[in-house]
Amino acid sequence: MSTQLEAAWRGTVTPEMEAVARVEGVSPGELRERIARGEAVILKNRVREIAPVGIGKGLRTKVNANVGTPPEAPDPDLELRKAVAAWRAGADTLMDLSLGGDLRAIRRRIMAEVPLPLGTVPVYQVAMEALGREGTVVAYTADELLAAIEDQAREGVDFMTVHCGVTRRVLPLLERSRRLTGVVSRGGALHIDWMVQHGEENPLYARFDDLLEIARSHDVVLSLGDGLRPGSLADAGDPLQMAELLALGELVERAREAGVQVMVEGPGHVPLPEIEAQVRAAKSICRGAPFYVLGPLPTDIAAGYDHIAAAVGGALAAWAGADFLCYVTPAEHLGVPTEEEVRIGVIAARIAAHIADVAVLPGARLRDERMSRARGRLDWEGMAREALDPGPVRERAQAPEGGPCALCGELCPMSARRTYRELIEGGKGTR
Amino acid sequence: MSTQLEAAWRGTVTPEMEAVARVEGVSPGELRERIARGEAVILKNRVREIAPVGIGKGLRTKVNANVGTPPEAPDPDLELRKAVAAWRAGADTLMDLSLGGDLRAIRRRIMAEVPLPLGTVPVYQVAMEALGREGTVVAYTADELLAAIEDQAREGVDFMTVHCGVTRRVLPLLERSRRLTGVVSRGGALHIDWMVQHGEENPLYARFDDLLEIARSHDVVLSLGDGLRPGSLADAGDPLQMAELLALGELVERAREAGVQVMVEGPGHVPLPEIEAQVRAAKSICRGAPFYVLGPLPTDIAAGYDHIAAAVGGALAAWAGADFLCYVTPAEHLGVPTEEEVRIGVIAARIAAHIADVAVLPGARLRDERMSRARGRLDWEGMAREALDPGPVRERAQAPEGGPCALCGELCPMSARRTYRELIEGGKGTR
Repeated sequence: MSTQLEAAWRGTVTPEMEAVARVEGVSPGELRERIARGEAVILKNRVREIAPVGIGKGLRTKVNANVGTPPEAPDPDLELRKAVAAWRAGADTLMDLSLGGDLRAIRRRIMAEVPLPLGTVPVYQVAMEALGREGTVVAYTADELLAAIEDQAREGVDFMTVHCGVTRRVLPLLERSRRLTGVVSRGGALHIDWMVQHGEENPLYARFDDLLEIARSHDVVLSLGDGLRPGSLADAGDPLQMAELLALGELVERAREAGVQVMVEGPGHVPLPEIEAQVRAAKSICRGAPFYVLGPLPTDIAAGYDHIAAAVGGALAAWAGADFLCYVTPAEHLGVPTEEEVRIGVIAARIAAHIADVAVLPGARLRDERMSRARGRLDWEGMAREALDPGPVRERAQAPEGGPCALCGELCPMSARRTYRELIEGGKGTR
Repeated sequence: MSTQLEAAWRGTVTPEMEAVARVEGVSPGELRERIARGEAVILKNRVREIAPVGIGKGLRTKVNANVGTPPEAPDPDLELRKAVAAWRAGADTLMDLSLGGDLRAIRRRIMAEVPLPLGTVPVYQVAMEALGREGTVVAYTADELLAAIEDQAREGVDFMTVHCGVTRRVLPLLERSRRLTGVVSRGGALHIDWMVQHGEENPLYARFDDLLEIARSHDVVLSLGDGLRPGSLADAGDPLQMAELLALGELVERAREAGVQVMVEGPGHVPLPEIEAQVRAAKSICRGAPFYVLGPLPTDIAAGYDHIAAAVGGALAAWAGADFLCYVTPAEHLGVPTEEEVRIGVIAARIAAHIADVAVLPGARLRDERMSRARGRLDWEGMAREALDPGPVRERAQAPEGGPCALCGELCPMSARRTYRELIEGGKGTR
């Protein structure tokens, strides 16, 4: 069995490529070439029976939603409801970042009930097991970590965040660091703690070839995590972030040589004027690998509304070339999101993704055109159909079909009775 | 009595300039020069006792919130509550766009109870009075419109949207137009209807000198409305929009020559890659006049969540030079916003404004730095203090002071117990 990447090298258009090309409206041959060059990946573990999802150049910008139990008082039913809510709201993928309860059972339930590609951060599982067993999150071995990765790959996990770029080389940089917020990635901090406590290299780096072999066998897409991403505007683009990015660039090459599909994760908190440069640098250093951004957040002070800040940063990042947006919920920086916050987070990220797609992809704007035609006719049912989320149009706009909403009434500029509309319709304006 | 503009020409730093310079952290002399050049304006009608608000180059990006009764079932108490909610949420200015009920009484109540500069669209008043009196919104005379403007200026209205650029010259363009959504500005559509029905020029253009004399006498800032703004991505930058913008450029010159402070309104719906160009064109054509944008919305399909789409467009526009963001609520394109939707609209616009200010203004980032320092210490009260809205931090984050929130628990990368923090704190990292 070969991976999508290996098949693409051989010139084979797989059924997964066919399926992705069809929903994306691109030619299968073109998609195959992008996969062969590593500019696009297809998420679908061999054992899962889901529609494959393509991520990368020339494809619609995708949105990921994170769910997962907190360490204390985990409620798997609630997380499953969040996963379903994210799916219904239009998320393209899910990540299960559970920390509490029976992690394997939760993951399996989500995969059984939600037909979206599922991602994980496998080190969470071994860390939480170590915590339960020995009272500290670093009491796991390299073998245990690799075994957990293999288990998850066998179960059907479609993509995995692996913080392979957090190596012993960054420790001196960390000591010299003048960061405001240090390390804000749970995986990044964990691997640093592990390296210091064990006096050894990060197993995800030291045993990268073993990791690649697992990924290759199951066609799991590796998502090279940014464990040293900036967690504040002040820390963006600093030596720690850049050192990790350079390391990831090398690992992208090694993954590709091994026939493993790979994408790269990015920041984080980044001032608006630096977002484009960061995306371009990542794309260049990582040889065009699909870029998966966590935000980015162009301000640090929007707690409670970080989904809005992330929509600004995400739209800019995707316009600049990012391919995959990890949603941010209103609960970011505050706690565990509710089901409704998950839904809103997905919607906000989808808005950002669509804004960028309109700017970049031919055809993405057609839906906006249909929406605007419906709006011009005060065709409320048409507006609901074309809206990113039909819910608010159906529930909120209490307007008669073909008539104005309550805001303007007689002053409605769209009303067909108005003189200026007769002007337009008497001319060549109507289309 | 001279206007702020006339005082600035004479080299006088007025008390209003002093006050604005103090809150903005700029030198009074520099602000005076910008006002003299027309690059900044100060909103404050002579008769109002409020803190003046400066808008323009080098000043913090400001946020306006629209309130106002709908034509049917107007509830002035509710609109007053919305005005207060907008003020509490941090709006810099208000516009009263009331259409139903006793418009003068509503306006006066808002001015009495909310100490923010108030803007209006005076033509709404004469149109709604005409509708009540004669059954049609266009049954008003030029004299009645000018009289209403003078009344409102005397009452204390600080700025007025006047659609002076919608002239008879645009009627042939309108007939040839191939717009998807025609005219989406209530004021724009109304003036077009009026011109066609009366067979006369738009009084705001024909009697622009009379308008200037009223504005000068009360130091009302004229906000030149964009009655032909695009209401869909497809219509952005079309000949109608550009013809009006050129007309506004000429009127900016005439206003300045008359000693009248003036700003210019802009779109609307604009694709992401065109926002910067639109802002720069407007600034160039209108000789650096403060630019007041309505959004812009970089997608047409976000109904129910247009505050998020507007945050994306607004952040980009303000980064490119727009000075003043009109908020957009989740009710945009659907109906009359609720009090909570008003609040959320203000917050979303403030996030956009701050994201742009961080990119442009020295010092704007200091608050983000304080926030991030608090975050690094898990100082929840400090985070609440620095947050754009402290509410969610206080209410939502159920975390012990100095301890992690529920999301990560033991895996919290910010926790002071973690090894990597000892690494940083053992080094030179802490600041």
